[in-house]
Amino acid sequence: MILTVTLNTALDLTYRVRALRPHGSHRVSEVVERPGGKGVNVARVLAALGHRTTVTGFAGGATGRQVQDALLAVPGVTDALVPVSAATRRTIAVVDETTGDTTQLNEPGPPVTAREWSAFQEAYGDLVAAASVVALCGSLPPGVPVGAYATLIRAARAAGVPVLLDTGGEPLRRGVAARPDLVKPNADELAELTGSHEPLRATLDARRRGARAVVASLGPDGLLAVTPEGRWRATAPARLSGNPTGAGDSVVAGLLSGLVERLPWHDRLVRATALAAATVRAPVAGEFDRRTYDELRARVTVTGGTSAA
Amino acid sequence: MILTVTLNTALDLTYRVRALRPHGSHRVSEVVERPGGKGVNVARVLAALGHRTTVTGFAGGATGRQVQDALLAVPGVTDALVPVSAATRRTIAVVDETTGDTTQLNEPGPPVTAREWSAFQEAYGDLVAAASVVALCGSLPPGVPVGAYATLIRAARAAGVPVLLDTGGEPLRRGVAARPDLVKPNADELAELTGSHEPLRATLDARRRGARAVVASLGPDGLLAVTPEGRWRATAPARLSGNPTGAGDSVVAGLLSGLVERLPWHDRLVRATALAAATVRAPVAGEFDRRTYDELRARVTVTGGTSAA
Repeated sequence: MILTVTLNTALDLTYRVRALRPHGSHRVSEVVERPGGKGVNVARVLAALGHRTTVTGFAGGATGRQVQDALLAVPGVTDALVPVSAATRRTIAVVDETTGDTTQLNEPGPPVTAREWSAFQEAYGDLVAAASVVALCGSLPPGVPVGAYATLIRAARAAGVPVLLDTGGEPLRRGVAARPDLVKPNADELAELTGSHEPLRATLDARRRGARAVVASLGPDGLLAVTPEGRWRATAPARLSGNPTGAGDSVVAGLLSGLVERLPWHDRLVRATALAAATVRAPVAGEFDRRTYDELRARVTVTGGTSAA
Repeated sequence: MILTVTLNTALDLTYRVRALRPHGSHRVSEVVERPGGKGVNVARVLAALGHRTTVTGFAGGATGRQVQDALLAVPGVTDALVPVSAATRRTIAVVDETTGDTTQLNEPGPPVTAREWSAFQEAYGDLVAAASVVALCGSLPPGVPVGAYATLIRAARAAGVPVLLDTGGEPLRRGVAARPDLVKPNADELAELTGSHEPLRATLDARRRGARAVVASLGPDGLLAVTPEGRWRATAPARLSGNPTGAGDSVVAGLLSGLVERLPWHDRLVRATALAAATVRAPVAGEFDRRTYDELRARVTVTGGTSAA
């Protein structure tokens, strides 16, 4: 099975309103409720691709129960979230029907105690032993040490299980130094890590800092991969309009599934690029449109190759 | 006991953000979670005044359980909410720390089935038999007939229990025709009911439509009462700045407690006015500031009297 870790899970709510006006009162015409957090989104995409996936991280309070109840309903996903006493956060995406814009409100994560963090590490050790690959995804809730991902990467490496890291800021900086097999920063995370806004230079630098391979997700500019086997750039056939929420999580799911299936890098990048584009085009944030995915796989451009490494 | 009815209960969330910008992403710095809906707010104020109060209406889903769990923690309030299969709505008040403004997002209420409405009426009949007074408060969720309050008013009158109605629109129009003992419209509700924006004319008209007494809450202009015993106007000593959310519910609590204690109208209006002002001044929407309440009771102005009826 594939293991995804989401320390800062969320109950994601999407609200539709006619037009968002600060200081106004709004009737929400539609509410969509989903279990969220990056690793949970990755697991949902993996399950849709036919990979059995286990979700771990923290869940607490009434909102945590809602996340766990909703996970029960996703075929192919197993819930292995660890209990915390504080409540799982909510995130609210307010979609303005007039402009199409989305306004995001993110609650703070639940404070995690030292004892809870300890209990998580124990559960994680058991789960890693049964995993073919591990993905560490998203932000850290308060109370979890900033070096948490470095600790979890070392444990996975000690168990001989490949590990992917998708986070930002100081947790990314410390995590990269612990030598993960793959990191997937976006342009902002890459610039913050390396100080460079030039994608190739920054991606090479991120690799030098300890990651075995780096796949940078550059939004409409596609993916830039720097790996021991070579360098590639992958782009979708056209700039797609839609909601980019969750596109990065679909890239992670594409890379993980390709790794488990031992696909060559070229094919992993085609899959990840097509999945990201199909997520941008889906009507609900974080889902992917299966038809768009099937259509785009034949039309993704990958340049570069094994000689460029 | 006092019985308050909230057919459209809510889980009320208050979010603090630095500055609300449409299309932006916001970290919520503080989340306050409370059981809500007008009758629930009324019950909380009544309990704080020392009156045993029972709350009925509907509760469903995870949010309904959160409302019921939170009610357990309020001394003096008994939960008699009736289960529905759909989930209780959330309301979100986003407080902008820079401007002090509040932006409101209200989810739609849960669809109520004919069978659930029937089960509620049966439970209501039993509760009314044990009540000294009933208050019917707020909007109707989808599926509840627009004449619902008229039906509930007739049942209370048949049981010889005085009944107060606090709602707007068509449910108010139909409810007034069923001859409640008291209605408490605000200026907008009164204008919509009567077509008149002149408060005294509109209040007299509302009484002619069937209400035994009308107390109009006119915001900073205070209360205007037209009753069989006389007419009064009550005003707080000064225009208070603060959050007016819940001030109307505090007026209802003041009027209900005064009725149960058989206070003369003058004293009921003093209490209701001071409570409303103390609610505007409280740091959390819908709570009241006890010291402001105690101070203001001596300083509320009431004009009019029994001769003017």
